[in-house]
Amino acid sequence: MASAAAAALVSWGFLDYKTEKWALLAKKGYQEWDLDPQISVITKLKGVSVTQIKEENRLWDVADFVKPSQGENVFFLVTNFLVTPAQVQGRCPEHPSVPLASCWADEDCPEGETGTHSHGIKTGQCVVFNGTHRTCEIWSWCPVESGAVPRKPLLVQAKNFTLFIKNTVTFSKFNFSKTNTLDTWDSTYFKHCHYDPHSSPYCPVFRIGDLVAMAGGDFEDLALLGGAVGISIHWDCNLDTRSSDCCPQYSFQLQEKGYNFRTANHWWEASGVEARSLLKLYGIRFDILVTGKAGKFALIPTAITLGTGAAWLGMVTFLCDLLLLYVDREACFYWRSKYEEAKAPKATVNTA
Amino acid sequence: MASAAAAALVSWGFLDYKTEKWALLAKKGYQEWDLDPQISVITKLKGVSVTQIKEENRLWDVADFVKPSQGENVFFLVTNFLVTPAQVQGRCPEHPSVPLASCWADEDCPEGETGTHSHGIKTGQCVVFNGTHRTCEIWSWCPVESGAVPRKPLLVQAKNFTLFIKNTVTFSKFNFSKTNTLDTWDSTYFKHCHYDPHSSPYCPVFRIGDLVAMAGGDFEDLALLGGAVGISIHWDCNLDTRSSDCCPQYSFQLQEKGYNFRTANHWWEASGVEARSLLKLYGIRFDILVTGKAGKFALIPTAITLGTGAAWLGMVTFLCDLLLLYVDREACFYWRSKYEEAKAPKATVNTA
Amino acid sequence: MASAAAAALVSWGFLDYKTEKWALLAKKGYQEWDLDPQISVITKLKGVSVTQIKEENRLWDVADFVKPSQGENVFFLVTNFLVTPAQVQGRCPEHPSVPLASCWADEDCPEGETGTHSHGIKTGQCVVFNGTHRTCEIWSWCPVESGAVPRKPLLVQAKNFTLFIKNTVTFSKFNFSKTNTLDTWDSTYFKHCHYDPHSSPYCPVFRIGDLVAMAGGDFEDLALLGGAVGISIHWDCNLDTRSSDCCPQYSFQLQEKGYNFRTANHWWEASGVEARSLLKLYGIRFDILVTGKAGKFALIPTAITLGTGAAWLGMVTFLCDLLLLYVDREACFYWRSKYEEAKAPKATVNTA
Repeated sequence: MASAAAAALVSWGFLDYKTEKWALLAKKGYQEWDLDPQISVITKLKGVSVTQIKEENRLWDVADFVKPSQGENVFFLVTNFLVTPAQVQGRCPEHPSVPLASCWADEDCPEGETGTHSHGIKTGQCVVFNGTHRTCEIWSWCPVESGAVPRKPLLVQAKNFTLFIKNTVTFSKFNFSKTNTLDTWDSTYFKHCHYDPHSSPYCPVFRIGDLVAMAGGDFEDLALLGGAVGISIHWDCNLDTRSSDCCPQYSFQLQEKGYNFRTANHWWEASGVEARSLLKLYGIRFDILVTGKAGKFALIPTAITLGTGAAWLGMVTFLCDLLLLYVDREACFYWRSKYEEAKAPKATVNTA
Repeated sequence: MASAAAAALVSWGFLDYKTEKWALLAKKGYQEWDLDPQISVITKLKGVSVTQIKEENRLWDVADFVKPSQGENVFFLVTNFLVTPAQVQGRCPEHPSVPLASCWADEDCPEGETGTHSHGIKTGQCVVFNGTHRTCEIWSWCPVESGAVPRKPLLVQAKNFTLFIKNTVTFSKFNFSKTNTLDTWDSTYFKHCHYDPHSSPYCPVFRIGDLVAMAGGDFEDLALLGGAVGISIHWDCNLDTRSSDCCPQYSFQLQEKGYNFRTANHWWEASGVEARSLLKLYGIRFDILVTGKAGKFALIPTAITLGTGAAWLGMVTFLCDLLLLYVDREACFYWRSKYEEAKAPKATVNTA
Repeated sequence: MASAAAAALVSWGFLDYKTEKWALLAKKGYQEWDLDPQISVITKLKGVSVTQIKEENRLWDVADFVKPSQGENVFFLVTNFLVTPAQVQGRCPEHPSVPLASCWADEDCPEGETGTHSHGIKTGQCVVFNGTHRTCEIWSWCPVESGAVPRKPLLVQAKNFTLFIKNTVTFSKFNFSKTNTLDTWDSTYFKHCHYDPHSSPYCPVFRIGDLVAMAGGDFEDLALLGGAVGISIHWDCNLDTRSSDCCPQYSFQLQEKGYNFRTANHWWEASGVEARSLLKLYGIRFDILVTGKAGKFALIPTAITLGTGAAWLGMVTFLCDLLLLYVDREACFYWRSKYEEAKAPKATVNTA
């Protein structure tokens, strides 16, 4: 029976030992951490693409299809668009797809009314939109956007564009800094390599088509109606070993399907009238998120981890006592022998 | 007396029990946490507004009043502006509000001088600004901005504009993802609802006027001189229960009062001269900040929380010992009975 | 011998006491923390600069050289640029610096070929680029960018520009908010001061030249080829003392050397042809990162810190026991006297 209790003690002690080992080794409880590195990200896209609209070719380069162009950690790559060229302010029929736009008579179009989805403000008249629809006339940028849904992406060559990411992390607590583009014997390597998770996991040049595929998306789908892709760069640096162990790990997530926004170019026509071309841009938004941590041996965290472990040693003693006192058949004897010596004998009670 | 000590033991033990319960239940010490979700935010503003400047109406839609237009988590909604149209580079009098601009004679205007607040570089001449002021002539974009302070906001209809926020959080540690726009039986709900903290707390469509009011601001004030409003979305997800318990909580903060910046549209006039219209834009900056955490039962954190609690059990024993040994009147007896058995008897000393 | 063990006990106890003091005082283990303040940053640049290209002066002000102009926490200050004015879409020779651009005959230029670094799509013809080079003709925005490397920065006056940073932190857990621009007896102070780490460490107006120098960079270098500078603002607030102890600490880091991007202004020529001027902009990117923490006395963290310390007390007892039992010459005696009383006497074994 006593040996059963001893076995229990051994197995609890084993759990305790595993927990502490866990904390000390797996979670590196002997290291001090810097979890908040200073991060710098610079991006650069390269590529050219040609679109063909109404028999006319138009060339697009980075100055045209990256917005904003500053090379920051969030940017948008245009892959498709819908142009409404040469809009001027005036009166024209609302698009039939807008709620409350269709009408039979002027009474259906209260003057001054507008709505969340409408393109302008109703003038009070019901006019012909096309052969099949009559809609309220509005005061707006005219003509209104057609509402057409794109059938095929216009900038399909974007699949072969490349994205270069330069990322520097600085762990100021340990005065340690590292960049994802250095430390190679071949200075031209980064000019010609392409990232591949297996063959070149540290190359910071990414093919857009590969990026989308690795995020689990389909390039043609995203190029048509837009989407958002996250690029996570994680640095897990153990500074007790050689610094070459501190390398970036890339991962990719498809955040959203469907992404577009509108923007306009304004100019003044020869007649002095302000005109604009309205662009509904579809494309892929890239979001680069960098996280990092660095650890280094230090005395204080080691002491604290050992201290927390020590609590478990106390717990084990306590539990073994419980086991021996209440569970074992010989409990009665143990109870007496553990606690009898602290009982005040009758002879001394009268001193109270 | 012994019972007083026992009472002390009980009350300390009670504190200990409360602390541990606190840690185990209130702080969910039995769960493993993911505090660093991957976040994606897409925003879309809708609405149209008309301004009237000098008897002329001008219509504004989203392509005009949202900057940048990409639909990111920080954007600026123009509510007011001051235009200085048709500036060209040349010589003109500085504005009198600029420090050191006023002058009596050419000697007051050192050629080439400029200042932090000036609009250009002094030519060395003192000229007439208007009927009451003489100022230094400068080489600048002319004429200079008037410095007028707006009296009433020009795009007051912005109050009724709506902001749609699509937000996805992914807790990669638990392979769990959730969006603030799904999980409803009515697919058109999100097209027509408006957020309200009581009646529709999960609708992701916000009226701009409501947003400002909930942040504690006054829309007319902010529309006139600008401001900054923070929108916090917090996800507190307990993955041990059904996933429908994991819902976004929105909160709103008025970060700043007064916000404006300048931007310019450039073009080339027929004569080949570069011209620009300078815009001083006032408006409301929206900053969307998403935070989140998800917890799930796990053995290791439970063990560690219990371990930390165990330290307190040790502490209690230690304190009770102290109490009994030093405070109690019968201390002398306890002292002896606790420690006597470990004293080396004289008979064995000669083995040293 | 027993006194040696006692000395060991004293020195271990001392380490224990230091560790706990460390945790309780140095790490303020008696305080509850808010590590995640709500942050608002507004920036404003001021200054004017003149460039001289081909005998012609051009004035630049904030509406021209800050991108984006919204006054956010990341922005780009143009200090140098390379203009390719009046590009139109057409056929022209590729630049010789592009890989595979040089050619001897039409056979070297496969029609339709393009590359990551090329400016357009090959037409299949080999043409004269200049007196010394023949390159493939491409269909592109023509003429192509010259590839010239700048020799001297064009906007050197940017050194004297000033950056005003308005930063508010809100610790919602303690309902405490503070701004880096208030709390002074002199309302005009912030209009005239310049930040200096020694003489005015709390002035939120920074001279660009000083910023670059404090980050460890050389302004002329960065102005020529661009760079990235980080500005860290750290708030370490002890709310148990007066709130004036809660002040921002600024630090500056040179993140990158070399930074440029391309952008374009588009317009329609009188003939109806779309033209653009391509700008390669060099400049300094500023990244403002705000971190903060606030602490306030609270009972629970104090209890937990003491609890963790208590674990060490248990550890000490355990180690002393080990010392006495195994190391000391009188171990045999101690062993017996500590454990003999719990041995089950033979007489009771037969109850099992």
